[in-house]
Amino acid sequence: MQQKHINSRMISKARIKWIKSLEMRKYRLQHNAFVAEGPKLVGELLPYSIPLYIAATKEWLAENKHLLKAVKEVDEVSREELERASLLRNPQSVLAVMQIPNEKLDIASLQDQLVIALDGVQDPGNLGTILRIADWFGIHKVLCSDGSADVYNPKCVQSCMGALARVKVHYCNLPEVLREAKMPVFGTFLDGTNIYEEELSSSGIIVMGNEGNGISQQVAELVDRRLYVPNYPQGSLTTESLNVAVCTGIVCAEFRRR
Amino acid sequence: MQQKHINSRMISKARIKWIKSLEMRKYRLQHNAFVAEGPKLVGELLPYSIPLYIAATKEWLAENKHLLKAVKEVDEVSREELERASLLRNPQSVLAVMQIPNEKLDIASLQDQLVIALDGVQDPGNLGTILRIADWFGIHKVLCSDGSADVYNPKCVQSCMGALARVKVHYCNLPEVLREAKMPVFGTFLDGTNIYEEELSSSGIIVMGNEGNGISQQVAELVDRRLYVPNYPQGSLTTESLNVAVCTGIVCAEFRRR
Repeated sequence: MQQKHINSRMISKARIKWIKSLEMRKYRLQHNAFVAEGPKLVGELLPYSIPLYIAATKEWLAENKHLLKAVKEVDEVSREELERASLLRNPQSVLAVMQIPNEKLDIASLQDQLVIALDGVQDPGNLGTILRIADWFGIHKVLCSDGSADVYNPKCVQSCMGALARVKVHYCNLPEVLREAKMPVFGTFLDGTNIYEEELSSSGIIVMGNEGNGISQQVAELVDRRLYVPNYPQGSLTTESLNVAVCTGIVCAEFRRR
Repeated sequence: MQQKHINSRMISKARIKWIKSLEMRKYRLQHNAFVAEGPKLVGELLPYSIPLYIAATKEWLAENKHLLKAVKEVDEVSREELERASLLRNPQSVLAVMQIPNEKLDIASLQDQLVIALDGVQDPGNLGTILRIADWFGIHKVLCSDGSADVYNPKCVQSCMGALARVKVHYCNLPEVLREAKMPVFGTFLDGTNIYEEELSSSGIIVMGNEGNGISQQVAELVDRRLYVPNYPQGSLTTESLNVAVCTGIVCAEFRRR
């Protein structure tokens, strides 16, 4: 273990204040950092992240020596001490503060890929679930309109379950990127064409809209193929719409099935 | 409007206590009642439910006279008064207490239908989302193992968005029902057969498991066809699993596509 990094058994007041502040987007942007908690999540994220700080129990630290090289500061703490800093109801053996990746979106690199674009998805839980879907279906880029929920929201980070390590999320001016990308743009609409009767390409951008309002007018105009996941029996009176994450899953599964 | 039913402009203390108690399963079972809030949800549920009590604004009551016939007690209240009783952060114009339907499960009636069975799904949000999926895909029965989340949990009721009106939920001893039903039983497993290569029938029971542990041993033994939603590229290292509601959506979509 790198002794020089392991600090006192207390988390300083200033540090607790810093960690707690990262619950708010404003401070995440200001500090360019986010919080991830739990041995599984932190273990998955560490190899892909720039870790700024870790507070963990002696046991976790002993088992994860190999992951600590790049970490700037480490506190070895009791579970009780961890509870003081945690953003979770049930804190686990490790809390990490990571740097928010700041990679610039390279539009040319999207070509030949399947990409998900979120146009104003608001619920952090949905966003986390969609990242897991992207990961499952080998989709490595998710574009988010500037009005979408923040993927570094603790609720979203925790629900991503490591997908955040493998899927790159870019916040962008979505209409601008869709225009520049010159790739087929797909979107789901209640008046779209049955997805099972529509030609799907192996690369393209799949746009999913806001939970209540769907895809915005501005983005809708840039959609080349309007898709629809048919209900059953088709046209019957059912729920008005599927949850956006469920719909994303069905659409991605269909793209990959082909 | 049925003047005799419209009571004072206050919600009595006893009634507020009754409503608040319905946030807990124990009291929902004791009172055999659950709470639904919001004009859209209440409007969708009322025609299919036995409403015990409604507190609503003057405006809502004026617009929904036709729905009030069966309601035992109605209070016309201000929004502020409604806030005192509401279980939501942002109360809307109407709060209803409905009787929990107590229909006995008729196993014979399941034949020739597609049915979803939940084996220990724990998250009320997932349960609500799955009910919307069932509704979307014309699945009218959802069986829940006794250990599953309670569909009458306010969080679940609110996320169902009216699906609760069209989809019947039965809590039961799941292994017993699966044995008695004599229908093909499908389940998803990480070591199952690619769903796109498996024969699917137009009727049968689709079992979905617990968020963390999947399908229980006892139920797994009763599954005839073990399915798997392939990740992409197949066999690659991705997220360990899809969210249970997303997986339910993909599986139901595939059953209905065929």
